[in-house]
Amino acid sequence: MSDSTTTIDDLKRLVGNFVDRRDWHQFHAPKNLAMSMSIEAAELMEHFQWISARQSRQVGDDPRRLETIGDELADVLCYALAMTNELGLDLSTAIHRKMAKNEQKYPVEEYRGRYGPQDKGERGPRNREK
Amino acid sequence: MSDSTTTIDDLKRLVGNFVDRRDWHQFHAPKNLAMSMSIEAAELMEHFQWISARQSRQVGDDPRRLETIGDELADVLCYALAMTNELGLDLSTAIHRKMAKNEQKYPVEEYRGRYGPQDKGERGPRNREK
Amino acid sequence: MSDSTTTIDDLKRLVGNFVDRRDWHQFHAPKNLAMSMSIEAAELMEHFQWISARQSRQVGDDPRRLETIGDELADVLCYALAMTNELGLDLSTAIHRKMAKNEQKYPVEEYRGRYGPQDKGERGPRNREK
Amino acid sequence: MSDSTTTIDDLKRLVGNFVDRRDWHQFHAPKNLAMSMSIEAAELMEHFQWISARQSRQVGDDPRRLETIGDELADVLCYALAMTNELGLDLSTAIHRKMAKNEQKYPVEEYRGRYGPQDKGERGPRNREK
Repeated sequence: MSDSTTTIDDLKRLVGNFVDRRDWHQFHAPKNLAMSMSIEAAELMEHFQWISARQSRQVGDDPRRLETIGDELADVLCYALAMTNELGLDLSTAIHRKMAKNEQKYPVEEYRGRYGPQDKGERGPRNREK
Repeated sequence: MSDSTTTIDDLKRLVGNFVDRRDWHQFHAPKNLAMSMSIEAAELMEHFQWISARQSRQVGDDPRRLETIGDELADVLCYALAMTNELGLDLSTAIHRKMAKNEQKYPVEEYRGRYGPQDKGERGPRNREK
Repeated sequence: MSDSTTTIDDLKRLVGNFVDRRDWHQFHAPKNLAMSMSIEAAELMEHFQWISARQSRQVGDDPRRLETIGDELADVLCYALAMTNELGLDLSTAIHRKMAKNEQKYPVEEYRGRYGPQDKGERGPRNREK
Repeated sequence: MSDSTTTIDDLKRLVGNFVDRRDWHQFHAPKNLAMSMSIEAAELMEHFQWISARQSRQVGDDPRRLETIGDELADVLCYALAMTNELGLDLSTAIHRKMAKNEQKYPVEEYRGRYGPQDKGERGPRNREK
């Protein structure tokens, strides 16, 4: 059970069985699942609410904190997997397709070191990350 | 390339290469990635903003709409995968661990057909989903 | 102390004093306040996560539930007011300006009974709200 | 029309008239309004997605950017006001009540310069804001 061997279908089945056994499909309308993904994404954000971006990079140093963050990420993912189950979506296909669109939208030559059109690249080493 | 054969690592590498080539790790502080997951989760919710839960189940009937929803799901997932790359998190492990906690928190006997403690089960067939 | 007599400035002062006394301006960067508004908006959504839109209209019938929802709304508003304090924004001006833009964007003749361009109005009395 | 003279009721009426004229109460179930507040709060967050907390304090220097941020704040507020209209909530009362709870929860002596229990105050002048 690790990312090198676990397929998306393995995880879809894990979530699907959990939902089936509790007769929860009745609650899993895509509208509710989308709300749920947002609710859990906000719980993840709470861990970073008042600290800086730089400080947020250090959360991986504390095993307990990292586990809690893993829990919150898992919550978002489980609802996403539940939605793919309800809608019959192949998630890998959707991700590959979207990344292909991103390749077009953010050509490397233009966007190397720039996060978007509004990023004029006025960033020196001292200001790079705050 | 489908959910039955794609591993989490396959997708982590896809996202990781995209980020590497654009020198975007500097922007990928976990704080910013958590914000990004929320931003994308909200874009997904827009598709269901004014329609009912019942109507939301029908979005799978329209291939173009389903593709757009797949795009939004992909956006959330890509940022989640980017966060696991930044933090060195094994996502499958986190998901299995969280689902094990959910098994404890929501025993089937108590929660079959009920979404939570506040759900008294006062739901007849006519009111089941609106 | 009621909506008929309370001005926006009254509420901005209430929040501002609270933040001043705790020396919390250091945490109130607009980025953090925007995250906080999202975090609190998600807590508000939790109250409606698994119930239908129709059922959500009944939350006003239960005084304790209504008070909790009022608390969550207050949380979002307090962070919004804190942001206007940090940025020196006149909120009434911003709201009037945005509503004027909305008047242009959603002319009554076109949008009466329709929530957006994608709403073809295929809604009969039975389907009106679910 | 400014924050010193505008009451909450003035703004509730502004939003209420807009909704009435378009016959939009049918869409304004609290569940949908809560989703809408989250959707707009996420649009506000986009303005701060890749910049630091420190950089986010400078958005007030650019009048066009400040106006755009004012628009996004207004969107969140308008949906909040719509919700108070649907539920018959007095927002000032809710805000005063929640701030009174916050006074109890965050006594000045304990929380001066600290954002929460997990904040050990290990912050020197150089690290204060990043």
